[in-house]
Amino acid sequence: MALYISEKDVASLLDIRMALGALEEAFAARARGEAGNLPRRRLPIGGGAYHIMAASWPAKGVAGHKSYTASRKGAAFHVMLYDASGAGLLAVIEANRIGQARTGAASGVATKYMARPDASVAAVIGSGYQAETQLEAAAAVRTLKHARVFSRTGEHREAFAKKMTARMGFSVTATTTAQECVKGADIVITITNSSEPVLTVDMLAPGMHINAAGSNSWLRRELDTAAVARCSIVVVDDIEQAKVECGELMRAAESGHFSWDRALQLDKVVVGQVKGRASNDDITLFESQGIALEDIAVAERVYRLAIERGVGATLTG
Amino acid sequence: MALYISEKDVASLLDIRMALGALEEAFAARARGEAGNLPRRRLPIGGGAYHIMAASWPAKGVAGHKSYTASRKGAAFHVMLYDASGAGLLAVIEANRIGQARTGAASGVATKYMARPDASVAAVIGSGYQAETQLEAAAAVRTLKHARVFSRTGEHREAFAKKMTARMGFSVTATTTAQECVKGADIVITITNSSEPVLTVDMLAPGMHINAAGSNSWLRRELDTAAVARCSIVVVDDIEQAKVECGELMRAAESGHFSWDRALQLDKVVVGQVKGRASNDDITLFESQGIALEDIAVAERVYRLAIERGVGATLTG
Repeated sequence: MALYISEKDVASLLDIRMALGALEEAFAARARGEAGNLPRRRLPIGGGAYHIMAASWPAKGVAGHKSYTASRKGAAFHVMLYDASGAGLLAVIEANRIGQARTGAASGVATKYMARPDASVAAVIGSGYQAETQLEAAAAVRTLKHARVFSRTGEHREAFAKKMTARMGFSVTATTTAQECVKGADIVITITNSSEPVLTVDMLAPGMHINAAGSNSWLRRELDTAAVARCSIVVVDDIEQAKVECGELMRAAESGHFSWDRALQLDKVVVGQVKGRASNDDITLFESQGIALEDIAVAERVYRLAIERGVGATLTG
Repeated sequence: MALYISEKDVASLLDIRMALGALEEAFAARARGEAGNLPRRRLPIGGGAYHIMAASWPAKGVAGHKSYTASRKGAAFHVMLYDASGAGLLAVIEANRIGQARTGAASGVATKYMARPDASVAAVIGSGYQAETQLEAAAAVRTLKHARVFSRTGEHREAFAKKMTARMGFSVTATTTAQECVKGADIVITITNSSEPVLTVDMLAPGMHINAAGSNSWLRRELDTAAVARCSIVVVDDIEQAKVECGELMRAAESGHFSWDRALQLDKVVVGQVKGRASNDDITLFESQGIALEDIAVAERVYRLAIERGVGATLTG
């Protein structure tokens, strides 16, 4: 009998370390050709779009998709999980929290393989819903001593700094400019909806690792083209999807400052087929669009744990 | 609050005329650019595949998808329907019956615009689950006096003939060969899983209309290449999808006996932008792969009726 797992259920089951473990395992499986991923596609609805993206991971026993509508009225996310041996539907899962966790965890996996081993200071540009898991994931893979946050609204960045200081076990301070936030940081996270660059080449320094995780639309970009060109290693979650969603890489490629031949895929980095960092002076960039395999990998763990703990409602007609 | 609508609920709400009405309206909307459709995509699972296909129809207030796994263990179909103004999930609907009805109705719409007005004899090759709605839909758009059925297993074709004679109000007789079934028929329906042609050029006669509705895999074909070449008008439900799924057209195109430039799309036929039949002597062919817009259009009507009649369970965590 299939389960319906609500956001409240997911909240009781999921944490960032679980998402990190799921993603690291999923990317390794993908590199071995054991997992399939179909890029996000969109159709217009009133004032927004309907989105659908799918993945399969037969060795884990699952195939499924995430679908959502996002518009001025808000967003509604769902994962549908099928049994990969053909036995039918396993679960319908409300997937806002899963999305938040997997986006954080994707940056966490990238940070693990791309940031300097001694990275200890993080800068977060953006203080919304998705920013929390970005910082949590970075802290799970590096020993952070301090973090800074910048976002345009003073109230928001102060609230984020206060909340995350209480949660993280190190100080998180708000800054009044992006420049001040990034200066001296080892790990820089952009997690904004900005259509204009929030991270520019003058803010970069040797040894930095950047997670650009805010945008998945070619209409937006968080880095300027010079910053992209300055990075020595560029990793994406999925090359096919990045080519149609990653505004900063698309612009940089179009203007001749970046070549898609340089883009590495995160799964290949995770298994060591390619290096995420070649030297301590490299500036490394992870461009996260968010792929279905991440959602399915986290949903699979949530589902198994729900079964184990008897959480969730039975889906019946 | 979103609804869960089971197969049993769908059975109590849906009939072939409702599906025909939904599809005719949906194809007309598509021709006007008011509906979007994303072709089916597949990922492998154990002994089969997981399938996903999506559509939106903002003027009707819906966007959504059909997903299913099909393997040696059987198949499980679901439609997820979202509100197209962004208000969230409307329903999860078990969609085996919806699929059966919409595939029949697609052939019905094609028959309405492509068969001779005086067509009165139907031949059905195949007697499985999907064959019933094929015949019902043809009978809904033409005044049939008689139908014949052929399938390889005598027991199956006899059972189909008996069941459909009781249902249709005209005689349905079983034949022992496909040739005998098709001879003298005005409307020929192929609804098989055959990988080898069941309808060959020698069986065709001027004035026939053919619905090739059984296959949606390039590995299979129901018509031989000479039969495809003999048809003067070829209509598909979706050109993009037919180019990767329609085994007979793909083979005919590859061998130079068919050009994709000749393929017309059903939506354009429905609104009269192109003719489905130019003369009484034309042999016309509708190649049905099955598209998401058909599922979403039928699901929308099922959902509205479920709300009106208080059918379906509330989907809660």
